[in-house]
Amino acid sequence: MTDPTVVVALDVGGTGMKCALVRPDGSTVHTERHPTGAARGPDAVVGTILEVAEGLAGKARADGLEPVACGIAVPGVVDDARGVAVWSANVGFRDVPLRDLAAARLDLPTTLGHDVRVGGLAEARLGAGRGTRHVLFVAIGTGIAASHVVDGSAVTGAHGAAGEIGHILVRPDGPRCGCGRPGCLEAVASAAAVARRYAELTGDPVSAAEVADRAAAGEPAAGQVWRETVAALADGLATGQALFDVETVVIGGGLAQAGPRLLDPLRVALHERMTFHREPRLVGAALGDEAGCLGAALLALDALA
Amino acid sequence: MTDPTVVVALDVGGTGMKCALVRPDGSTVHTERHPTGAARGPDAVVGTILEVAEGLAGKARADGLEPVACGIAVPGVVDDARGVAVWSANVGFRDVPLRDLAAARLDLPTTLGHDVRVGGLAEARLGAGRGTRHVLFVAIGTGIAASHVVDGSAVTGAHGAAGEIGHILVRPDGPRCGCGRPGCLEAVASAAAVARRYAELTGDPVSAAEVADRAAAGEPAAGQVWRETVAALADGLATGQALFDVETVVIGGGLAQAGPRLLDPLRVALHERMTFHREPRLVGAALGDEAGCLGAALLALDALA
Repeated sequence: MTDPTVVVALDVGGTGMKCALVRPDGSTVHTERHPTGAARGPDAVVGTILEVAEGLAGKARADGLEPVACGIAVPGVVDDARGVAVWSANVGFRDVPLRDLAAARLDLPTTLGHDVRVGGLAEARLGAGRGTRHVLFVAIGTGIAASHVVDGSAVTGAHGAAGEIGHILVRPDGPRCGCGRPGCLEAVASAAAVARRYAELTGDPVSAAEVADRAAAGEPAAGQVWRETVAALADGLATGQALFDVETVVIGGGLAQAGPRLLDPLRVALHERMTFHREPRLVGAALGDEAGCLGAALLALDALA
Repeated sequence: MTDPTVVVALDVGGTGMKCALVRPDGSTVHTERHPTGAARGPDAVVGTILEVAEGLAGKARADGLEPVACGIAVPGVVDDARGVAVWSANVGFRDVPLRDLAAARLDLPTTLGHDVRVGGLAEARLGAGRGTRHVLFVAIGTGIAASHVVDGSAVTGAHGAAGEIGHILVRPDGPRCGCGRPGCLEAVASAAAVARRYAELTGDPVSAAEVADRAAAGEPAAGQVWRETVAALADGLATGQALFDVETVVIGGGLAQAGPRLLDPLRVALHERMTFHREPRLVGAALGDEAGCLGAALLALDALA
């Protein structure tokens, strides 16, 4: 007989929630997506999260499965230990005790984690970092953030704010970042920064993916933006490697969909920056946008053990 | 009756070795210093290390103490797990299996650690970081390196090369670093860089400590160099805080002897750079140049437990 155990897993983003029932081996038996509806305010978002989680637990029981835990991932600053969504710009959370709210509603042990940190956990254990003990997962999308995973655990830091590689200084004379400081990696090399820089040069408001395509097609302005982006990312990854000394760097997030157009030149640029360092393996993420949901499930399973 | 247990501890530097017999509570019962004599070549240095360690164990026994372990700290790249001094420019080691050599000679369980990493271990557990769980120790001397200590253990990385904060990019258009790359923190803000920059501006070859004194006395060129140094250090620490999210940053090494002349402006500059971050407490090291030796002893004691 198959083990009926499943975890209720939710990855709450600024626009949508990815939700699943996940078995202890990391396989998914059911998935759902829902709009976050962040514009409705944090109370309404919390209400939706609890409703969706309850619905998933009910669906599991109806299918003869046994939900044993709930794992929720949210963006921003997350205090895993206290189970509190401390701060999130795009969902609107401020000190929301989401773990305890969900645990009370579902009557299930619940864990709360940071979306990129648990995404890194999933990539390190089930995805592109599988088989290596020291992994840095870097998600490059609208923003840039990282998850440092050692021996299958994501490093959280003292206040749940570790891994903010988007906010390391790479270009002191560069554009101002959303955080308020000039020259952050995120201000130079996120998907949003790529699109903005290209629009500045050409007046043409296209996506970062389109800039990658045009660069590959030999369009000079796109080529220049792409080269600058790759150089800044390589500087950021070299700093990460100097501090963390990992075996594997996994690149995820929207910009990673450029595939070899990003990874091939980035690998060359990172290699050029390695001096005393041991050069890490640089690979693309394997789990796509399901990493956060799987990672939320892993965190919940870890807490049971 | 007092516990007779002691650890034989050696901190091997480029010019001298600090050696001690250390009790399990971290108190020191005997200290010795010896010249490293690196110019004699690595084999001779290894010979001296083994002789000094054997002498310390003999001294302990003669005094009615019981040496139970040996801890050795060395600079460069150190593979703690294999007990190998992988590479060190100033001592001349290349793949020296120092742990096993010492264990065989002394017939004692021996551990090998990185000098700054174990120095951070000692500061975190016995010194300025005492009582906090997440500590970043930054040693600023001829070079700059860091030790990230979480719950009393120093993070080593996959290849024993974690914490190289001296080699993170802070000034892309800055001077070339000894590692070969331009703009590393170490090339801009180490004690050596301070002296070099001041000499460039004034033609006056004085120490970094003297530059600090002259800056405090209102000498314009010294003031400029000191402000640039503090700004670069604050950029480096802000990057460290974004990635590690610690509670306490401990500043050690030769430059830390400038005391409030370094720490006061550095605290202000770091504060200016904190946006989403939780600001760490910034303090001077408490154990001086004995941190490495104490840390080597702690590492050896940890391995016994």
